[in-house]
Amino acid sequence: MNRQVLLRQRPQGLVSASTTECVNGSIPECSEGQALIRVGYLSIDPTIRTWMDDAPGYLPPIEIGAVIRSAGAGVVVESHTSRYNVGDIVIGMTGWQEWCLATEENKFSVVPRGMGLDLPTVMNVLGVTGITAWFGMTDVGQLADGDVVVVSGAAGATGSVAGQVAKARGASLVVGIAGGPEKCTEVVERFGFDACLDYREPHLARRLREICPRGVDVYFDNVGGEILDAVLLNIAMNGRIVLCGAISQYNDAGGFGLKNHTMMIMRRASMKGFIVLDYASRYAEAQLELGAMVLNGQLEHAEHLVEGLENAPQALNLLFSGGNHGKTLVVVDSSVALT
Amino acid sequence: MNRQVLLRQRPQGLVSASTTECVNGSIPECSEGQALIRVGYLSIDPTIRTWMDDAPGYLPPIEIGAVIRSAGAGVVVESHTSRYNVGDIVIGMTGWQEWCLATEENKFSVVPRGMGLDLPTVMNVLGVTGITAWFGMTDVGQLADGDVVVVSGAAGATGSVAGQVAKARGASLVVGIAGGPEKCTEVVERFGFDACLDYREPHLARRLREICPRGVDVYFDNVGGEILDAVLLNIAMNGRIVLCGAISQYNDAGGFGLKNHTMMIMRRASMKGFIVLDYASRYAEAQLELGAMVLNGQLEHAEHLVEGLENAPQALNLLFSGGNHGKTLVVVDSSVALT
Repeated sequence: MNRQVLLRQRPQGLVSASTTECVNGSIPECSEGQALIRVGYLSIDPTIRTWMDDAPGYLPPIEIGAVIRSAGAGVVVESHTSRYNVGDIVIGMTGWQEWCLATEENKFSVVPRGMGLDLPTVMNVLGVTGITAWFGMTDVGQLADGDVVVVSGAAGATGSVAGQVAKARGASLVVGIAGGPEKCTEVVERFGFDACLDYREPHLARRLREICPRGVDVYFDNVGGEILDAVLLNIAMNGRIVLCGAISQYNDAGGFGLKNHTMMIMRRASMKGFIVLDYASRYAEAQLELGAMVLNGQLEHAEHLVEGLENAPQALNLLFSGGNHGKTLVVVDSSVALT
Repeated sequence: MNRQVLLRQRPQGLVSASTTECVNGSIPECSEGQALIRVGYLSIDPTIRTWMDDAPGYLPPIEIGAVIRSAGAGVVVESHTSRYNVGDIVIGMTGWQEWCLATEENKFSVVPRGMGLDLPTVMNVLGVTGITAWFGMTDVGQLADGDVVVVSGAAGATGSVAGQVAKARGASLVVGIAGGPEKCTEVVERFGFDACLDYREPHLARRLREICPRGVDVYFDNVGGEILDAVLLNIAMNGRIVLCGAISQYNDAGGFGLKNHTMMIMRRASMKGFIVLDYASRYAEAQLELGAMVLNGQLEHAEHLVEGLENAPQALNLLFSGGNHGKTLVVVDSSVALT
């Protein structure tokens, strides 16, 4: 049997009981050129919510009745291709299910053993989460020595890594934005940011101006909406805004109307959206530096484990309520392990 | 006597009778290192409206009681510097007045004679208007061969030149956006755009999709607001949005809230604001190409002349009502001439 979570109805706002259905499918047959994978962990990313809408995106919407599209990790249990060996730990698009196939169209990457890192850590820091933070800060944001950097979603998986990469690469000031005093404390004390502002408190734009009086050189945006608008008021001359995500907008059909974009003319600022898939041929650059940082104890990271495939929809909602704590992973089978 | 238009009160929305006052000042004394200029024409640009607000900008706000800051052209009538000769036609920041000084802090550029172009043409095409269009399209917009280009404010001074530069440099499709059927016809028939959409008609985003089915590679934005939002829905992969101006926003304290900026993530698009002053050291590059295009009959241009210094405030309002027709210039003294 292959338990699977299917899309039943496109959600309005957060995922609800009628959005998905957990069914008993069958384990797929593994043909020539394919490999069968037992899924161990699912990577719960905000982008999954955007795939549930019938709207233009960088990938087509998930079809009604289809397994929810998702990244994940698993172990190869049967292989009819030289690309994978039985026992390999692989990362790729598993979907929300217990078993999946690696095919010519759906390739997985094999995780090297012997790094001394566990699988959740690898999925977080060396997976798309960490890689997104790294390319967003270095390549899209063009971080330069002495820059003043602001990161929203700073307690989150991507944001916490983005800030630490900025700090390690010579930013003069790294300020986080997060929700609530507990997360703000964690951003400073655990992830080593210089300061962290609570967006739930009033006057964010004014508080940003106080802490970054000469303006923000790089803004790594994970949230969009009102927080982006507040940072626009404080953007420095030639400032760069990295549009990594807009988590505040994904459940909001109306969307927040950005009012301060004309500041980009006054300050000759730029704003650029990116998708980490565009850097696929260069992932190793990021993984090399991030892996070294972890092994040298220079990169703090947190994984938030949710037990059970059936809880994947609730795990996705955690990203929007702020109830998660670091990279959110669903444990489908904890026996799938690197070490 | 030196008639001058002073700022009396910061406007809410359009300039009104209480915003400015026309007074009789005195002709300034011309000291060592300075030159006295008789003003011939004022360049009426949307940015003047932004200087009237007490808001952060790329230049400080005009002070209450001061002469309205403005570009313009004039003739040197007295000179105590080797930089200018009596009789030189010069372009620079004249302000809304009949006489002004060229000083060490307020330099003017001398217009070469012998090109066979009249002064209004030079102020339009070879002045900041044409130069803005040229650098915005080539340098900020990174126009490439075969690009699909959209230009808003297409019947205006900057937009009409921007579209013609794009066409001359190999764009595969140049679509204008303008207000009303008369302007749309002019954009196509006179300025040679491939098509022009009337933003006053409904469903702009849908009409753009029909005419640019594979998306917009370069959007040269003169207006901001709702039109920018409609183009964002149609931006192509790796599309570039040039934020040149936001004329729809300058009189609107609330501002239009941009809702579709998250499309920039999906489409890996970028948006960049610029101010032509940043290119001051490179103006000649633009002027050389634009001058050659005019002389070869490859660049159509239009100047809208408003007679009388006292009518400068009404001329400024024309830019926002759409009542102008090409580059708006106020004629202060028509005897100031190149030919």
